Order: sequence, then structure tokens, then C-alpha cells
Amino acid sequence: MNEAQLRTLFEQIREGAVDIDQALTRVRHMPFEDLGFAKVDHHRALRHGMPEVIFGLGKATEEIVGIAGALLERSPNVLITRVTPESALAVLERFPEGEHFPRARALRFWRDRTVQGRGKITVVCAGTSDIPVAQEARITVEVMGNEVEEIHDIGVAGIHRLMSNRERLAGSKVVIVCAGMEGALPSAVGGMVPCPVIAVPTSIGYGASFHGLAALLGMLNSCSSNVTVVNIDNGFGAGYVASLINRP
Amino acid sequence: MNEAQLRTLFEQIREGAVDIDQALTRVRHMPFEDLGFAKVDHHRALRHGMPEVIFGLGKATEEIVGIAGALLERSPNVLITRVTPESALAVLERFPEGEHFPRARALRFWRDRTVQGRGKITVVCAGTSDIPVAQEARITVEVMGNEVEEIHDIGVAGIHRLMSNRERLAGSKVVIVCAGMEGALPSAVGGMVPCPVIAVPTSIGYGASFHGLAALLGMLNSCSSNVTVVNIDNGFGAGYVASLINRP
Amino acid sequence: MNEAQLRTLFEQIREGAVDIDQALTRVRHMPFEDLGFAKVDHHRALRHGMPEVIFGLGKATEEIVGIAGALLERSPNVLITRVTPESALAVLERFPEGEHFPRARALRFWRDRTVQGRGKITVVCAGTSDIPVAQEARITVEVMGNEVEEIHDIGVAGIHRLMSNRERLAGSKVVIVCAGMEGALPSAVGGMVPCPVIAVPTSIGYGASFHGLAALLGMLNSCSSNVTVVNIDNGFGAGYVASLINRP
Amino acid sequence: MNEAQLRTLFEQIREGAVDIDQALTRVRHMPFEDLGFAKVDHHRALRHGMPEVIFGLGKATEEIVGIAGALLERSPNVLITRVTPESALAVLERFPEGEHFPRARALRFWRDRTVQGRGKITVVCAGTSDIPVAQEARITVEVMGNEVEEIHDIGVAGIHRLMSNRERLAGSKVVIVCAGMEGALPSAVGGMVPCPVIAVPTSIGYGASFHGLAALLGMLNSCSSNVTVVNIDNGFGAGYVASLINRP
Amino acid sequence: MNEAQLRTLFEQIREGAVDIDQALTRVRHMPFEDLGFAKVDHHRALRHGMPEVIFGLGKATEEIVGIAGALLERSPNVLITRVTPESALAVLERFPEGEHFPRARALRFWRDRTVQGRGKITVVCAGTSDIPVAQEARITVEVMGNEVEEIHDIGVAGIHRLMSNRERLAGSKVVIVCAGMEGALPSAVGGMVPCPVIAVPTSIGYGASFHGLAALLGMLNSCSSNVTVVNIDNGFGAGYVASLINRP
Amino acid sequence: MNEAQLRTLFEQIREGAVDIDQALTRVRHMPFEDLGFAKVDHHRALRHGMPEVIFGLGKATEEIVGIAGALLERSPNVLITRVTPESALAVLERFPEGEHFPRARALRFWRDRTVQGRGKITVVCAGTSDIPVAQEARITVEVMGNEVEEIHDIGVAGIHRLMSNRERLAGSKVVIVCAGMEGALPSAVGGMVPCPVIAVPTSIGYGASFHGLAALLGMLNSCSSNVTVVNIDNGFGAGYVASLINRP
Amino acid sequence: MNEAQLRTLFEQIREGAVDIDQALTRVRHMPFEDLGFAKVDHHRALRHGMPEVIFGLGKATEEIVGIAGALLERSPNVLITRVTPESALAVLERFPEGEHFPRARALRFWRDRTVQGRGKITVVCAGTSDIPVAQEARITVEVMGNEVEEIHDIGVAGIHRLMSNRERLAGSKVVIVCAGMEGALPSAVGGMVPCPVIAVPTSIGYGASFHGLAALLGMLNSCSSNVTVVNIDNGFGAGYVASLINRP
Amino acid sequence: MNEAQLRTLFEQIREGAVDIDQALTRVRHMPFEDLGFAKVDHHRALRHGMPEVIFGLGKATEEIVGIAGALLERSPNVLITRVTPESALAVLERFPEGEHFPRARALRFWRDRTVQGRGKITVVCAGTSDIPVAQEARITVEVMGNEVEEIHDIGVAGIHRLMSNRERLAGSKVVIVCAGMEGALPSAVGGMVPCPVIAVPTSIGYGASFHGLAALLGMLNSCSSNVTVVNIDNGFGAGYVASLINRP
Repeated sequence: MNEAQLRTLFEQIREGAVDIDQALTRVRHMPFEDLGFAKVDHHRALRHGMPEVIFGLGKATEEIVGIAGALLERSPNVLITRVTPESALAVLERFPEGEHFPRARALRFWRDRTVQGRGKITVVCAGTSDIPVAQEARITVEVMGNEVEEIHDIGVAGIHRLMSNRERLAGSKVVIVCAGMEGALPSAVGGMVPCPVIAVPTSIGYGASFHGLAALLGMLNSCSSNVTVVNIDNGFGAGYVASLINRP
Repeated sequence: MNEAQLRTLFEQIREGAVDIDQALTRVRHMPFEDLGFAKVDHHRALRHGMPEVIFGLGKATEEIVGIAGALLERSPNVLITRVTPESALAVLERFPEGEHFPRARALRFWRDRTVQGRGKITVVCAGTSDIPVAQEARITVEVMGNEVEEIHDIGVAGIHRLMSNRERLAGSKVVIVCAGMEGALPSAVGGMVPCPVIAVPTSIGYGASFHGLAALLGMLNSCSSNVTVVNIDNGFGAGYVASLINRP
Repeated sequence: MNEAQLRTLFEQIREGAVDIDQALTRVRHMPFEDLGFAKVDHHRALRHGMPEVIFGLGKATEEIVGIAGALLERSPNVLITRVTPESALAVLERFPEGEHFPRARALRFWRDRTVQGRGKITVVCAGTSDIPVAQEARITVEVMGNEVEEIHDIGVAGIHRLMSNRERLAGSKVVIVCAGMEGALPSAVGGMVPCPVIAVPTSIGYGASFHGLAALLGMLNSCSSNVTVVNIDNGFGAGYVASLINRP
Repeated sequence: MNEAQLRTLFEQIREGAVDIDQALTRVRHMPFEDLGFAKVDHHRALRHGMPEVIFGLGKATEEIVGIAGALLERSPNVLITRVTPESALAVLERFPEGEHFPRARALRFWRDRTVQGRGKITVVCAGTSDIPVAQEARITVEVMGNEVEEIHDIGVAGIHRLMSNRERLAGSKVVIVCAGMEGALPSAVGGMVPCPVIAVPTSIGYGASFHGLAALLGMLNSCSSNVTVVNIDNGFGAGYVASLINRP
Repeated sequence: MNEAQLRTLFEQIREGAVDIDQALTRVRHMPFEDLGFAKVDHHRALRHGMPEVIFGLGKATEEIVGIAGALLERSPNVLITRVTPESALAVLERFPEGEHFPRARALRFWRDRTVQGRGKITVVCAGTSDIPVAQEARITVEVMGNEVEEIHDIGVAGIHRLMSNRERLAGSKVVIVCAGMEGALPSAVGGMVPCPVIAVPTSIGYGASFHGLAALLGMLNSCSSNVTVVNIDNGFGAGYVASLINRP
Repeated sequence: MNEAQLRTLFEQIREGAVDIDQALTRVRHMPFEDLGFAKVDHHRALRHGMPEVIFGLGKATEEIVGIAGALLERSPNVLITRVTPESALAVLERFPEGEHFPRARALRFWRDRTVQGRGKITVVCAGTSDIPVAQEARITVEVMGNEVEEIHDIGVAGIHRLMSNRERLAGSKVVIVCAGMEGALPSAVGGMVPCPVIAVPTSIGYGASFHGLAALLGMLNSCSSNVTVVNIDNGFGAGYVASLINRP
Repeated sequence: MNEAQLRTLFEQIREGAVDIDQALTRVRHMPFEDLGFAKVDHHRALRHGMPEVIFGLGKATEEIVGIAGALLERSPNVLITRVTPESALAVLERFPEGEHFPRARALRFWRDRTVQGRGKITVVCAGTSDIPVAQEARITVEVMGNEVEEIHDIGVAGIHRLMSNRERLAGSKVVIVCAGMEGALPSAVGGMVPCPVIAVPTSIGYGASFHGLAALLGMLNSCSSNVTVVNIDNGFGAGYVASLINRP
Repeated sequence: MNEAQLRTLFEQIREGAVDIDQALTRVRHMPFEDLGFAKVDHHRALRHGMPEVIFGLGKATEEIVGIAGALLERSPNVLITRVTPESALAVLERFPEGEHFPRARALRFWRDRTVQGRGKITVVCAGTSDIPVAQEARITVEVMGNEVEEIHDIGVAGIHRLMSNRERLAGSKVVIVCAGMEGALPSAVGGMVPCPVIAVPTSIGYGASFHGLAALLGMLNSCSSNVTVVNIDNGFGAGYVASLINRP
């Protein structure tokens, strides 16, 4: 949508050909700014009501610094995922107010800390090795304005641990479950809570785990009907959807 | 939890050792009835606040009739999925008020039609061949107390069709997208709506679609962050989670 | 080992060159009889102390009848697995004392019912659709001289069901767990019992279950250390090993 | 199970509502201690009658040292698997009585050397490259109180080597067979012994071995009925189950 | 190479520009006859010194009858593989001297029975279910002018059976080994004979055999260096190469 | 784009706000007609300058008849692919001028036979079993206004056959190569022609062909740089792209 | 074809036995020069009318320098793909007029910059991480004599970005689309343009992208009929075929 | 077979119970020497009439030096495959007469250079990147007493190169073909020669070559009947079998 069309739209509004609701809907899908190497979409936050996110994988340090600068000017909260230590350092040098989470490979600018969610989001991980993925989910959930609770190291092989957390789980609006190896935990949690469960397979394991494939297949075949699945190690995606679900 | 424990629990309540909220939480995980071949769990509906569901795959006709009978006595709404025509007929003979959806392989008893959801759930399918899966999702969403809208046959190869449905999509609380072949539609829809998108890969396709694997992988790798995925052809699961998300 | 060598062996025994224990060990690996199409190994039972077993897959009816006849002359107990209804009928016509289990595709001659095991073997299945595989395991375990208990339909999505069977499970010498879909049950059971668990993935499921692959991978990656795995749908193999484990 | 419940249980015992056997069964599933990053389960040893085990993969050095310290206070024998050289060193600095096995990536504290097994466990490996996995199995079997015998480098391509070990194999209560490449050895050994065989596929090989997949599939399809399988390179799991089988 | 070029070639020979050896080499790669739907290559037999072969898979009955007629006019021996019963019948009606092998799906015209091989080719199969593939290999080997010996039902799980056939195997010029399931037999046979072993994976098995994939991978990773592999169920290919190896 | 917008557009044209070229571009992406079960896009032909195509897979007979009727009213040429014999019959009953190609599963209405291509398109198939796929490609190429030549049964194992067709191949504007099994023919043809080669893997083969996967992978890895690939058995897609390439 | 045959051919031309057109066709397939380690085919450029290309993967630096030298003597334009920085440096030292593109791993000698194509080729990439592959395509398209336009960072999740480029896309003769993750962009672009689309899956992604497999499968199953596919990350191949399509 | 049995055998020979031929056959399968970490089988050379071979993968340097020393004392020719540069150096320091081939990762002791083969073995490779695998094959073929010819860089995309080598190929007793990427060369060569072709897939390629899987599948599905296949990159295995085939 170019300037001419925008003018047309506003003229149409003035002329009454387009009412306010329709105009808003259209504006949702409108402009983005061209940085040369990447089209920064300043309206995406407006569209989803969410902070801006930079997916760091495969981007050069100078690209990330450039995009971060553009976003920080207009958005209170910015999250950079899959960022290398070098890129994180370079961004922090220019914008020192960010928090760096090296195990989760994330860099977060969390300036607006208003809580917007309807209830609590719980992030569960099956083993201590799954913590970095759970941490990515938690960081995302927080920066998107939600109250979070984390529960670590409760696998299906120790059902009594699971049972002892029953009440904390049952009080959640959404539960995110991160698990590698056989990926069985989301099914067990799913049977214990009356809310949606977002399953995150992790690449933790060896041999026939095939870098998370075993966990992924297990979760897709869950016998608990309240389970949906995101990509292997995609803690961010799980946190993002959980936040959308938790919005009023 | 056996009778003795139940009595203990009630005694503890009477004695004040357990208050009402805790007691409710425990009751949520309590009893089920033994039919010999299958443990019918009458509290599941209570736990999730949902109708009862029978997963028909691999169950004999007499088993399905038996379980259906037990459930219909206590639950207003019952859904039977993946039911063969023979089993559906046998159930309908005994309980004629059910609706049979042969293409979706579903049988539905929808006696309590109260709407409970916060908003509209939209079910989208990419091609006419994906309709049976979309129908399973729709049936589920309805029986669980939601308002539904269906949009058929809008693939990514015809973006103008997609754009012309923008406003209908944007007004949804959740969108379910069923697509086979390359499974690209959830990403495109995901970029257009500010709500969660549940992607259902279908087994429609041939050759390198590998019975839905191509669509499944495509959806798991979606560049839209608001997409989660369920198993191939699992319209029911998508409808179930969408209903949970849509609850107040 | 031909006749001459056998004579040599006996001569060596008589001459004291070979003592009784060594001779027995050798005899364990000795002769088999040639039926033309299949070498019937009459010493296998003696070697493993087990009934004779015919693997029916891909064998013609007349072959099965022939082998069954040869085995029934020398072994009290004979088990035929993966037998077609036609072949089962043909065998029963000639040897009417057999029991036919059509869902488990098994035919059993159980003439010597002596119990030889050290304790109870428990066979668990996750869903009613897994019963045929569980039945194959049970039939095997019984014909091999063990006491069996069966528990049906206790999946990880209903942990309270699992917990309510805790005491029955804990009293077992071996537990066999049959599960399809995500195959999570063996991990959960494994964490509840102090004995070996044999996991049998079943081909029950659809879509990304890939005919039992998801369950198989899940079980191989179990976080419970007491779990070993057999081939998809191999109830017989699980029963066979469980019987060996249960022997004094 | 929290303190209150424990008190309740003891009160119930005192009141005769629960007898000693039931109480013991429940205690088996009871408490664990929270170290912040990992829930150390001090009753697992009691439950399975086994030493404590730390799965080192993906755990930070300080985590491993912390958990090791907690376990060594209460359990005579502790095994750390998949430990990096750095973590091993750090643990040994604090607790110098451990033995380090760098090729098997294991660290063992073997203070109680009582033999508890019914008989001998034999660990076989197909090639010299499979020795690290076999060593992990051996270390596990020993620390769990069993007599072990090891046989190296006897592949199916040299059947005479196999035959010459026939008597050593035949005297075992359980045999663990580690093999990479085509993974055929468990079948051959399985046909020679009347006891359970636990097959461990190793990742040794190249090209179409696909990091142990070829061996894994071969073992799952074994024509010897006494074979069960664990994950690729899972020497520990094989040793653990073998020890359970060998217990009186 | 068209007529004009052929004339040129002959003229070049007459003129001495091309000598006889070169001319023969060229003629080897020359003409074929066009039947419309298939180019029948009458020189292939001359090139490889072999009977003509029709690969029946996916060919219509009339096509097979047509090609068979063309070949039978010029070649004494003709083999049709993967032929349906209907097509076989149709060919036999027109050319009644053929032999039909329904289990091996082959039809053979064996009019010239001269033995041309250097020695004996042995065809081994692991189980009775592998016999059809072994039969296809045998039929091929015979029609190509070789002496054959067949050994059935000697798997690696019964090594004594294998050992008792050691001398028959050792006297072979080539050994063909057909095996499904774990496909371990070629390695064991390979270690016992000083000649090439051609391994034929069969699709016999279930579950994780994945229609012969497990056997195929096992054979490709054989630790016996004298093993090469052909496609799953390709008894014909194995017989063909064995015959080439056995030629003087 | 609805009627109102269309009117707006025409008004804008009349007022000079939009010139003719822009208007045409917009019209290309404009309307489609709603049949209830499928959105028939009457402008697609105009957009691509191509006949209308119905993808028959998974569509009910009445759906196909309905869509065909709508399309035949406005488009001279219509192609129905992957049509069942029943649906084909039903369409022909209503619209008898169609040609039915049962092996290619296609139904064609070819009323406008104008040749529009720049040159000849050649369709090559490796074996007679690949003919149905080649036929689908040919039918498509013809109905899209191109001159076609077909060459059957020239595999890489008979290079002299390939060489003898060198001149026919070299005169093509595009070559379509259909091949199953190892899928090597496109590479060989690619090295012989100076034009684009479209490779169509077919599902012909057995065992390790994995229903066309082997051919597909081979073609994707072609060492001839002028080769691109379409889905397994997708003769239509190859013909469609070849026609686009051949347009002036 | 050796010297003698070449002389024969020229003699045949002189004698009128071969006319000029036939002679040209033959010369197309004629000689190549032997460098010892690689057969440099100087006629390939003549055959395809294209610059010379060296595939650098797995070639030693001295090999690349040697081949480059031989080609640069006879061909104005030379492209080296998949070249390591070391090899690129070594070539540039000897032949300094080359341009090095490190991210695209390419080295280009572009001495003849004549434009030969019929129209514009557009290269599109879905994300900034796909730029190196897009760059390889662009370099190829340019050196082969075509006008190029590049469009970066327009994924399906932001359809408005795609729509805003509609007119630039619609004016192309061929479009190359590079995309990783779910690989959905070629379908969307395919629906917007009336020309061939060449899809290049990239290895960008993580988890279930399986190094580009998800994108590859998605593209092969595209519902846009004008899409063909090349190997993962094969920007060169896409550029090569696009250039052939664009030739008059 | 232990000493006692050996004595028995010799006594039996002396007594005439066993004749010379039988005795030789038995001796073929007799003794091996125990080095602690590996059973060196000194009779293997005698059994297969071949030099001794050490498979270096996964063996420690000291193990390789030890085994090499043992073998060099008794066998004139020794080949070490998959040896690291470090291990190669260490062996050469102790036994300096070896030849080291770093690209082929081989170390060869070739002291007895008698030619034993019936004819010439030709080793062909498709591209220069396949040379290391071809070199491993050549080294093996030579050390086993055969005359070798090597032909490099003749892929199916340049059929004229292939044709120009027709006569060199046709004069071979066996042809080994090493090819990566699509692996089509063995089929083309197979159609040109009347002898066995051993196909070696190499891991050369990228993207959908999946580390040699594409080439492997292509070769297994070859339409040339004289092709058998070995593991990816297994130049040694191909050379070994070729040598066996070439023996008188």
C-alpha cells in the first residue's frame, strides 16, 4: 500500500465511503519501512498487539543492530531470539538497557511491564537440560505482559513429582511443557489440567531421539486432546501463542 | 482413589482439614467406572468442562455402543470420532437422536446447545478435498458450545481470495486452518490475524506429500509466530483446543 | 553336527574325555529335522526350556499344518503366531484341541499347564485398541508357565487411573506395557515399579504415528532406566522375554 | 505428598486404617528434595533397590557437583553417566574416591561392593570400537552388585570365534550385546543362550549405518525371540535392566 | 546408429579404416527394433551373452505377449519377471512351452540348457517366507546356464544349522543369500566362504522392518567384506550378477 | 475485490486516476465465483493465458460435474486431471465432446486447437511403465497450444538408444523426462540438449524405490545444470511449466 | 570422438556425405581436453551457449586454479561456485579480474556483459537469511546475459508486502524464489505471476526444518502449477535454468 | 575350536576318520590369537586367500600399531583403512615400508606384488570429488593382486565422454563405479559392459543428496541388471569383492 493509496483511503474515510472500523482493519495491513536488507514492519506490533521480535538466526551482527535500533525507537518492548553472544554484545553496547540470557540465546528490552494477561501461564520442563528452551518461553511470556510460574524437572518417570504439582498446574490459564527424549510429559500434564497445553519438543537426547524427532512425534500423537505442538526447541513460539491465548 | 479415601476426604472436609477448593481440585481427579474393556471416565467432562468423546479407531461396534450408552446417561453432549459406518448405524439404532457425518466419520449427540465461547471460531480449508477434516473440526467446535464460521477453498496460490476474506478472519477469536499438499495456508492466515491459529495438516496430496508429512513439516516451520500444530487429519483435536482457548 | 560326530561325542563321554555338563551344553546345539521346506528344530524347546513356536507370517497353510504336526508329537505346548483364519481352521481340523484367538492372530496348544515362573507377570495396555497385542503377550506368557494379570486402558492422560493400579503393578516380577500413539505409558509405569518393563509399541494411531514409529521412538528414548523395547506389535516377543526373566 | 499427608499417613498407620505393607508401598512413591535446579529423588534408590544415578548430558558442572554431593551423603554407590572430562574433574576434586572412565564418559562411586545378583552377567561387544559402550554397561552392572564377564570382538563374520565362546555365554543369567554396523550379533548370541539378551546398538559405522539406525532396526527385527533392545549407545540402560533381571 | 552409418561402418571395414575387433565392439552397441510401445533390443543378449529378460512390472498383458513373441523368435531362453497370473496365462496360451512359477511371479522359457558356469552357485534363504525371492534367483541362475544348489531356512539364530552347511557353502563359486527381518545372514555366510556373497534383502517382516529397509541397511553395513547388495526382493538381479561372476 | 471496488476501479480509469496498464494488472487478480463447495476462479485462465484445469483428486463426482459445467461455459479448453472412471463418465454424459484418457486419469476438452508455442516440446519416458505419466504431460502440453513429440523407452542402461535420438532431442525448446526407479535419465538427456529439462519422477519401481523417492532424490541431485524437478507422477505440472516456457 | 574421427567427419563433409547441419549437431557433442585430474569440456559452453562453470565443492585449490586457467583462455565468462575463501584467493592472485562473493561462495569472471535475454528475471527471497542463496542465483543470471531484479524479505506471513510487489513480479519473464523454513513463498508468488517460477529451498531453519527438507517437500507439493524445484541451496541451478528459459 | 579339538582333528586325520579335503575345510575356520583388545584372526587371509586388513575407524593408535605388528609378521601384504594421519604416522615410524594415501585415509604394505587376477579391473569415478573413494578401491584392488585401470570424471551428463571410453570399459573383468549426487553412472556403465559392475555411492553432494543417500537409492534401483551395491564411501569393500570376482 503506497502513499497514494493511503491518501485515497483517508479521502474515502472523509467522504464516508469507508467507515472507521473498516479503515482500522485496513491500516492493520499497511506499511513497512525498507532498511535495504530487511523490511521492518512497524505495524506488526500494532496488528498483534505484541512487542517487536527479531529472529536472529542467520542475520549478521550489523543487520541485527540496525533492525534493533529501528524497532527500539517505536516499540517499548523488543525481543531478539537466537542471537549469538557476539551480536548480543554489539547490541548491548549501543543499547545497554537490554537483558542478555545466554543459555536461551535471547536479548530482551522490557521497558513496558504492564500485565495484560487474563491469568497465570505455567512453564514446565521435564529435565534440567530442557531449561534453556523453557527459559526462552518464559522470557517471551513475560515481555508480552503475563504472569509466569516455572516448574522444573518433573518427568513422567516420577509421577509423584507430577502429582505434587497438581494444584499449581490446575490454576493455570495455559501450560507450556518443554520435554526432550520421549516427549511424554505434555500428555500427562494434559490429562491433569482443563486448559490448553502447548508442547515444545526439545533436541535433548541422543541416539534414537534423532535431535528431537522422537519427542516431536510423541507430542503430535498425544492422547490428551488439549495438546498442540510447535517446532523443536521453539520456546519463543510457545510463549508467543500462550500469550495470545491469555489475552482478554 | 478408592471409596475409603473418598470417605476420608469427606470426613476431612467435615473436620475442616480440607477446605472446599482443595476438595474440588481432588474430586477432579477421582473416579471412573469399569466396563471391562474400557474405563469410562465420567469425571473427564467435569474436569475439562467438555462433552464426552469416544475415539472410535480400532474399537469394536459393541464396545462403542456400550461406551456410548454409559456416557449418554450422564452427559448431554457426546461426540464419537473416527467411527465406521457400521458402528455409527448400530449406535443410531439404539440412540436415534444422533447426527451422522459420514465424510468426517463422526457421530454427534448435541442436546445442550448453549453457547459458552467468548467469540467466533473460524474454520478455514485450503481445498475442497480438505473439507472432511474441516468438518470434523466444525462439529467439535459446535458441540463444545461455540459459534463457528467456515471458509472453504482459499489457498495461497490465490492470494486475492485470501485477501477478500480478511475481515471475516480478523474478527475471529481463534482460527483453525486445514491444508494438505504444501501446507502453506496457516502461515499466510497467521500473518493476517491477531489471534492463535491452529494448523491441521491433512493427508491430501500425492507423491512427495508422503501422506501429509510435507504439510506437517511446513506448518511446524511456519514463519508466523501465532501458529501451533496438531496431528495429520486431526480436525477433532484442533476443534477441542480452539474451544478451550475460546472459553471465558 | 552329523551322526558320526554325535557318535564321537558319546564315545568321548564314555571314555571320559568329555564330562556330563559339557556334553549337555553341546547337545543343546545339536540336531534338527528336515521337512523339506523348513528345518524344524526339536531341540530349541530343550535349549530354551520353552514351548515350540511357529511364526506364521508368510507361511502357506500346508506348511503350517505340517510343522504343527511335527512339533505336537514331541512338545506338550505349541504356539502359532500371526496365523491367518484359514490356516488356523486347517490346523484345528487336524488337531482340534487348540485354542484360536482371532484378534491376536494366535493358535495355542496348552497341554502342560504347570506354573514355572517366580512371580506374577502383568500385561498393561494403554487403550482398548491395543488389546490384540496385549492378548498375544498374555497368551505367550501363559503357555510358557506363568501367572498373568492384565490391566486395560490406563493411559498417561489419566494419571489417576495409573495411580489407582499402583499396588497391582508394584507386585509384579515383570511388566509388559503395550501402547500406540505417543507410547508414553512405559515411562510412567517404569517410574512406578522396581522391576523390568518390556515396552511394546503398537501400530495403533494415525497420521504422524507412522504405523507405530512414534511409539517406538518414544519408548527407545524412555527416561525410565528399567525399560527395554521390542518390535512394533510384537506381543509375542515381549511375552517370551518376560517369561525368561520370570524363570527361577 | 507433602508433610501433612505424611503425618496423616503415619496417623492412619497408628490408627490401623493402613497396615504396614500398604504404608511401605506408599512410602516408595514419596518425597524428593528440591535443590532449585533439580529435584533429587532420594527414594528412587529405595524404590528400585539401586544406586543413585546422575544423567550428565546437558547438565552444567556446578549442577552435577551439587547433585553428586546430595546423593553421596545418603547413598553408598553413585554413578554419573555422560559426564564431560571437565565435570568429572570437578566432582573428583571435591569427592576424590570416585573412579573416572573417560572412554565410557562415566564417573563411579562404588563404596558398597556386596554382590546381590543371582548369577553372572556377560557383556559382549562385536568390535573393538564398541568397547566404550560395553564398558558403560559393565560399570553399571558392577556398581549394581553383579558379577560380570566381558567378551570382546566376536562378530557374526567370524562364527568360529562365537562358537568358541559358547560355553562362557551359556552360563550367563543375562547377556548384554553391544554392536554397531549391521547389528547382527544379538540374533546370533540369542540363538545360543537360554536367557534374556539385551541388545545395545552402537553408533559405530559410516554411510548407511546412519549413526546407529541400521543396527537399531536390525536388533528390533531380530529373529531370536529372547532379544530386547535399548537406545543407541545406551550401555547404562542395558546394564541397569540386566541388573534388575539378575536380582533374586 | 542408423542404416547409413552401418553401411559406412561396413565400407570402412572393407576399406581397412576399421579393423574387425573395433567393428565388433561397435556392433555390440548397435540396433534395436521398434515395437511402438517398447524398444526391443535384440543385441542385448549378444552383448551380455545372456538370455532375454522382460521386466513385467507395470506392463499390460498385450505388451508382454508382444515383446515375448519378438524375443522368442531370436533367443532360445527368455525370462519374464514380476508377471501377473493373467499375463502369464496369456503368454502360455500363445507359447505353451514356458514354465510358470506363481510364487516367484516368473515365467521361463528354457530351451537351451547348456551349462556355461565355472562352478556351483548356492542360493540360501533365511526363512521359509523368503523362498519366493530365492526361487526367483534360482530360476535366473539356471536359465543363464549355471549349476545351482539351494539351502533353505538357516538363520543366524540357529548357528548350528549354519555350521552344518559349512561344507556345501564353501564349495560355491558365488553365494546368494536372501533374508528379511534383521538381514544378518549374509554377514554370517560371508565369514564362512572365500567367494563373493550377493545379499538380497526381502520385504518379509513387520513393524520396524519397514518393508525390507531394516534388512537392506543391515546388509549394506555388513562387517563381511565379500558382501554386495541388490534391491529389496530383487532375486532376479542377484541371480543375474551371480551368473556373470560365474562365467569363465 | 467486490462489485463496489470494481466500480471504483472503472471510475478511477474513467477519471484517469488509473491508466490502462495498471487496470489490467489489477483485473488479473480480481474476481471468482462462489459455487458453494469451491471457488471457481474464472480469471485464472486470463491471468496465465491458459485453459482451465480441475484437480480431480478427492473431489466428489457431483462437484467435478458442477465445476466443469461452470468452466466450459467460459473457457474453450478444459482439462480434468486425476479423475476417477466414474467421474469421467458422469462428466462425459453431460458434456460428450470430451476425450477420456483412462491410463493418464485425464479428461480433456480441446475445442481451441491454435498452436501458440515457439517450438517443439519433447516428452521422453524411460520405460513403458512410465507411459501414463508421460501421457498426462503430453495431453497438457497439447491442450495448452503446443506441438509435441514423444519418445518412449530410452533408459540410461541403453545409451545407444539415447544417442540415436540425439537429433530429435536437440531440436526441442523444452524436454520433459519421466523416469522411475533410479531416475537417471534427466541427467543424461540434460547433457545432450541446450534447453531446459523438466524431470518428472514416477512411482514406478519396487523395494528401495520407496514409491518414487529414489527417482525424486536422483533428479534433485542431477549433475546437469539445466534440470528442474516436479512432484512424483506430476505429468500435468511438467506439461504446464513446459508450456509456459514455450510461450513467445 | 578422437582426432581420427574428427578428420573423418570433416572429410565426409567435404565429400558431401554429411551436410552442415548434421555436422554442427555432431560437433556439439565432441571433444574435451584431459588435464589429468579433470576432463575440461570446452564445447559445453558452445553446446548450451553458456559461460563455463566450475563446481568447486570437494576440489583442491590447485585443481580449481588449473581448470580456471584452462577455461579463461577460451571463454569470456567463467563462474566458480562453492569455492572456499582459500581457493578464491588463490585464483584471484593468478587472475585478478574476478569478483569474489564470499557469502554466496562464488567467484565470477564477467568479461562479456552483452544482454541476451528476452526479458527480466526476478530473484525473490523470503528472509534476510536466504540472501546468500539468492545472491548465487543473481550472479549466475547476470553472467549468463540477463537483466535481473532482486526483492528481499517478503514472506507469506506478511501478505501485504507481497501484494505491494505485485507489479514488479508480474513484469518478469521468470521468477526465482528462495525460501527456507516452510518454503511457502513459491506457491504464493506462483499464484501472482503468469510465468514459470523456479523454487529454491534453502537450508535456513532449525528443528523440524531438517536442513531444508521441510521447504523442499513444501515446494514439490506446491498447489501453483507453474512451480518447478531445484536442490536445497542450489541458487546456481535456478539461475542457470532461468537463463535458459529467458533465451530467445 | 580349542587345542584339544585341534589335536583330535589331527589324530582323526592320522587315523583316516577325516580325509585331507575335509581337514582343510575345517582348518579354514580355526584359530585366532588374543591380543587383549582385539582378536587377530591369522587364518582369515588363508581362508579368503587375501591380505590382512585392519579397519581403522574408532581404533586407538596403539591398538592399530599393535595389530599391524602382529599381522606384518605373518602376512606379506597388509592394508589399513580409515586410518587417521596420527595413527598412520605412528605405524610408519615402527614399520617404515608402508605407503600412506592421506586422501583415501589408507596405509598399505604391499610386499608381495604377484598378479593373481584373471583380467583387468577398471575403477571409474564420476567427478573429481569422488577420487578419494576411487583411490581406496584402487589401492585395495592392487594389494590383492590385480591389474587396474582408472578413469576419472566421466558423468552421465557428458555421454560423449562415456562413449569415448567404451572400449577401455568393455575390456574389463569387473568395473567399479564411484559416484555421488544422483549416482546415475553405474546404470550407464552397466549398459555398456558385459561384466559385473560394483557401484559405490559416495557422500559427495549437498542438500537433498543427504550424505550419499540419494546416490545409494539410485544405485539400488538401477535398471542395469549387472549392478550390485556396497555401502556409501566403501571403496575398500568394492575393491575387495572385485578382487574375489577376478580370481581364477
